[in-house]
Amino acid sequence: MKISLDNARELCVAYLVRHEMPEEHAGVVAEHLIYATLAGHDYAGLSRLLPIAKMLRERGPGGTITTLRETEKSAFIDGANVNGYVTSVLAMDKAIALAKKNGVGIVGLSNSWFSGMLRYYVERAARAGMIGMHAANSTARVAPYGGIDRLLGTNPIAFAFPAGDTPLVVDFSCASMMWGDVLYHQQTGRPLPEGHAVDLDGFPTVDPASALAGAIRTWGGPRGSGLAVVIQALGILGGSDPIISEAGKWGYFFMAFDPELLMPLNDFKKNISSMQEQIETSRPSPGGAAVRVPGSSGTRKIQEGQARGWIEVDDAIYQAITLPCNH
Amino acid sequence: MKISLDNARELCVAYLVRHEMPEEHAGVVAEHLIYATLAGHDYAGLSRLLPIAKMLRERGPGGTITTLRETEKSAFIDGANVNGYVTSVLAMDKAIALAKKNGVGIVGLSNSWFSGMLRYYVERAARAGMIGMHAANSTARVAPYGGIDRLLGTNPIAFAFPAGDTPLVVDFSCASMMWGDVLYHQQTGRPLPEGHAVDLDGFPTVDPASALAGAIRTWGGPRGSGLAVVIQALGILGGSDPIISEAGKWGYFFMAFDPELLMPLNDFKKNISSMQEQIETSRPSPGGAAVRVPGSSGTRKIQEGQARGWIEVDDAIYQAITLPCNH
Repeated sequence: MKISLDNARELCVAYLVRHEMPEEHAGVVAEHLIYATLAGHDYAGLSRLLPIAKMLRERGPGGTITTLRETEKSAFIDGANVNGYVTSVLAMDKAIALAKKNGVGIVGLSNSWFSGMLRYYVERAARAGMIGMHAANSTARVAPYGGIDRLLGTNPIAFAFPAGDTPLVVDFSCASMMWGDVLYHQQTGRPLPEGHAVDLDGFPTVDPASALAGAIRTWGGPRGSGLAVVIQALGILGGSDPIISEAGKWGYFFMAFDPELLMPLNDFKKNISSMQEQIETSRPSPGGAAVRVPGSSGTRKIQEGQARGWIEVDDAIYQAITLPCNH
Repeated sequence: MKISLDNARELCVAYLVRHEMPEEHAGVVAEHLIYATLAGHDYAGLSRLLPIAKMLRERGPGGTITTLRETEKSAFIDGANVNGYVTSVLAMDKAIALAKKNGVGIVGLSNSWFSGMLRYYVERAARAGMIGMHAANSTARVAPYGGIDRLLGTNPIAFAFPAGDTPLVVDFSCASMMWGDVLYHQQTGRPLPEGHAVDLDGFPTVDPASALAGAIRTWGGPRGSGLAVVIQALGILGGSDPIISEAGKWGYFFMAFDPELLMPLNDFKKNISSMQEQIETSRPSPGGAAVRVPGSSGTRKIQEGQARGWIEVDDAIYQAITLPCNH
C-alpha cells in the first residue's frame, strides 16, 4: 500500500518506541529506513523494523554512547549496544566535524549492531564538502577465496565524493549474496542461484538451509576476497574481534577528509562532475541501456521519491508494524 | 638465465643511466623491478626496462620534483615528468613521515608516469607501523560497466596493515585484464581469453588488435566498475584529468595513518595476525590448495628470493638490456 513519508516516519517511530527504543533514536532509524525504501532496496527498508525489534528484545535499547579515545583528528567510540543506524550517524558526523576543523577525521566504532546502507553515511560527508569512506565488518558468514569456513562478514564498503550537482556515492558488499537474501530464499522455499554458497563440508549448494549452515562465497574471486579482507582489517581497527563469532564484537571504520588538503574544492567538484558526465554520455553496449555512474540510479530514485512524498509498503509489513502490540 | 641480485641491480642502473635517467633515480627503479621479479610478476620485472627506456626517449628524464601545496598532514607534489617509480617512493615516504608526526598523511602526485606494483609503496607504510592506502589512475583504456568507451585507467588500488610477523598487503587492478597483457598477446599472436574486451563498435572480441582499438572491460561487474570509478576519483584528487587521454595527466593518491589514533599498535597488530592465522589455517575447498591470505604468497616469494640472492631473467630481456647501446 501507499503511505506518505510523514506517515511512514510516524509508524516507524511508534513501532520502535513500543520496542523500548528511545524516541530520538527511533527518529534516526526511521529516516534511514525511508531512505532505503526510496532507494529501491525493499529488504533494507521498513521490513528491517522486524529484525531490529527482535534485536531490541534480545539485547535491550543500549546504554550511554561514550568516546573512549580522542585526538584532534580521531575518535574511538563505544556504541554501548545502541543500534548501529543511530551510532553510525554519530560516528560519521564526528568524522565530518573533525575533518572540517582539522582536515581529516578518522573514527572507530564498536559495540553496536545493524547499520543499514553504508551510502547513507558517506553521502553526509560528500554533502558537507568532504570525501567520505566507511567500512563495516560483522558476524562471520563468508568464506575467503579458496576456503570454505565462515571467517568474514558480508563486509560492505562505501565512498562518497563531493561533486557539482550530485555527489559521487559508491557502496557495495564483498559477499556474493547478502545473508538476508539467503534467509529470504529459505522463507520463500526457493533455491539459491548457483555458485554463491557452500554447505558445511564445503561443497557447492543451492539449498538455503545448507548454505546457512555452511558459508557464502565472496564476490569477485581473489580480488573481491582481497577487498573483503581489507574491510575485515578496517573493522578490526574499528574495534571488532579478528574473526567475529555469533556473540562477537563488530567494528565500523569511518573517515572524512577535506579535498582542500590537495586542491581547491571547486576544482575537485568540477572534475568529478566532468567524469560523471563523460560516463553518463558515453556509448552503452550495443542494444544496452544508458551507462550509469555507480550509485546514481539510487540517488535519482531517492530524490524522485522525496519529491513524490510517498512510499509503497508491503501489506504484510504494514500489518506487522501497526499491530498495537506484537511482542 | 640466473643472475645475482647485485648484478641485476647494476645492470638495471647502467641501462637506465644510458637512457639519461639520473643514477639516484635508476637505483630506486632497480630495487622495484627486482622486487617485482622476486614477487613472480615477470611482466612487471626487468622486462619493464624497455618501455621505461622508450618513455625516457620520448619524454626525457624529467625536472625538479616540487611540492605545490602542503599542510601538516598533506602534500601535493608535482612529479616534474620524473618516472613514477621514483616519485611514488617520495610521495609514499612523505605520507608516512606526516603520519608519524601528525597521525595522518595524505599526498597527491601528478605529472609522473609508470609506477609498477602498488604494493611496493603501501608495504613501506606497514613496515613503518602505519596503515597505507594508495590508488592510481592512468590513460583511459577501460570501459565502465554497461559501456564500451575507454574512460577509466586500469586503476589499481592497494592497502597495507602492520601485523605481528608479515604485514597484510592487498593490491589489485580493476581492469579485467592488464593493458600490457593485451599487448603481449598481440606480440605473441595469441587470442585473448573470452569476455575481457570489446572492439571499436563495442562488440566482444578476442582479437588483441581489435581490443587495443576498443576497450578492456572492468573486472567484477558493476561492483568492480564502481571501485574503478572510486579509484578514478582518488586519482583526480591526486591531480589527474577527469578522463585521461593519451597525452593527459595521471594522478596518484597516497595515504598513511597511524593505527594508534584508534588503538594501541600492538593490539592492532595482534588482531591482524590473528585474522591472518585463522584464514591460513582454515579448511580449503575440497581437493583445493591451502587457503592464503591475499598478498601473502607474493610476500613469501620476495623473502625467499632475497635469501636466495638471484633471479631468473629471460635471455631476450638480458640481451636487450646489456647491449652497449640500443637507442
